[in-house]
Amino acid sequence: MLYDTEVIGRQTMRLTVLGGCGAWPAAGQACSGYLVEHDGFRLLVDPGYAIVPRLLERITASEVDAVLVSHGHPDHCADLHPLLRARVLVEVPAPRLPVYALPGAVDRVLALDRTVEEAHTVRTFAAGDGFEIGPFRVDTWELPHFLPNAGLRLAAGGRVLAYTGDTGPSRAIIELARGADLFLAEATYAEEVPADSAAYLSSARQAGEAAAGADVGRLLLTHLQPGTAPAGAQAAAHRAYRGEITVAHGGLVVDLG
Amino acid sequence: MLYDTEVIGRQTMRLTVLGGCGAWPAAGQACSGYLVEHDGFRLLVDPGYAIVPRLLERITASEVDAVLVSHGHPDHCADLHPLLRARVLVEVPAPRLPVYALPGAVDRVLALDRTVEEAHTVRTFAAGDGFEIGPFRVDTWELPHFLPNAGLRLAAGGRVLAYTGDTGPSRAIIELARGADLFLAEATYAEEVPADSAAYLSSARQAGEAAAGADVGRLLLTHLQPGTAPAGAQAAAHRAYRGEITVAHGGLVVDLG
Repeated sequence: MLYDTEVIGRQTMRLTVLGGCGAWPAAGQACSGYLVEHDGFRLLVDPGYAIVPRLLERITASEVDAVLVSHGHPDHCADLHPLLRARVLVEVPAPRLPVYALPGAVDRVLALDRTVEEAHTVRTFAAGDGFEIGPFRVDTWELPHFLPNAGLRLAAGGRVLAYTGDTGPSRAIIELARGADLFLAEATYAEEVPADSAAYLSSARQAGEAAAGADVGRLLLTHLQPGTAPAGAQAAAHRAYRGEITVAHGGLVVDLG
Repeated sequence: MLYDTEVIGRQTMRLTVLGGCGAWPAAGQACSGYLVEHDGFRLLVDPGYAIVPRLLERITASEVDAVLVSHGHPDHCADLHPLLRARVLVEVPAPRLPVYALPGAVDRVLALDRTVEEAHTVRTFAAGDGFEIGPFRVDTWELPHFLPNAGLRLAAGGRVLAYTGDTGPSRAIIELARGADLFLAEATYAEEVPADSAAYLSSARQAGEAAAGADVGRLLLTHLQPGTAPAGAQAAAHRAYRGEITVAHGGLVVDLG
């Protein structure tokens, strides 16, 4: 039984939310940051502003095996820099960290100073590519945002986590999320996205519609702009999607399956 | 008496430590970040990695009146970016925030994306300059670090806070700190700075020697590299300096006078 438990534990994909704020980190919170673990492999998706203090409450910097970035806005990748510092400004530096990102996405963050020059290996991909990171199969879609953004579908051990990054409305979202066990969906606003951002950001209402259309197992709303009430976002998503809906916050752990 | 209390309250310079980690933010902590208040004016000194969630636990982003940066390393200025985002990505944007910094010091942080272009006014100074920020008289000294660093002496209401930024040994430190009510001193290491950094960083032992030489009222050690034991740093500083010694940590509030 102990053996079974261990095997099940190792085989289950686990998501730990480090932060779920959109745009900037609210009081006591962090921006986008998702630790995805499977079979002992630790993939950090979107190291946004202020996630490093939350990450290090759980694991050491050297225990991160790879980083995957949806797009180059700093609320999704700024804390790559202190993470790399924590890996190399120590007596025994960690090996170079593979960072999977769209071309140029993390260049400005990596340019913040020279301490991290030998701390990373950037592996660029194009939105639309499929590839492997450790035990994860990663498929990607180009989704509309102010700058290039890759929707990410991670599969391992028969489980699927789909994540939009930041996106406006697109038919590709349904393809990305189809049948996913967990759909981690940007929902900067609850009901309506202001007109000047409507092509590039989503509401919780739209996330709910996509979750219903893609028939996902569970919906996790994230990237709420500070000040957006979680209950209002949940209610807006619930109008279209009748499955379980949660709003991402630091410390939330979801085992897929 | 109420009147007296109010006057005293308004006239006392207050330091609130948002974070005190050197190099990168440890678990649950933030890097350098010091809110200095006097007479209702809120000056944020060194908005390092991950200080914004701590700042916003205390005041709103729009309540910051000015920012002052000792040097351009991201553990001292990276969170200027999310602070500016929090001020402008809202319905009623805050006015441009004055940011006092050495030439070029915050350029890379401000270049992280375009959302903050209209959120700030950078006011450059040279190390050695003296100027006013709100109620504060600011005097500065060039102190030796890997890149240009300004030691900062803030005076208001008859009280003085002296802050090294990051520095190696220099006679100017004594001048900077002379007779200060509070000496906020970088102490990356406890006893010895590794040889390759010895010209550019300090130990708690050295900070204690400077505190004694400058006859300061109180010593606040900061910028301990994660893993450096506070008690060891305190003991190292105590060998030369016999006044009150504290190690900076998030949430510490010190009223000067």
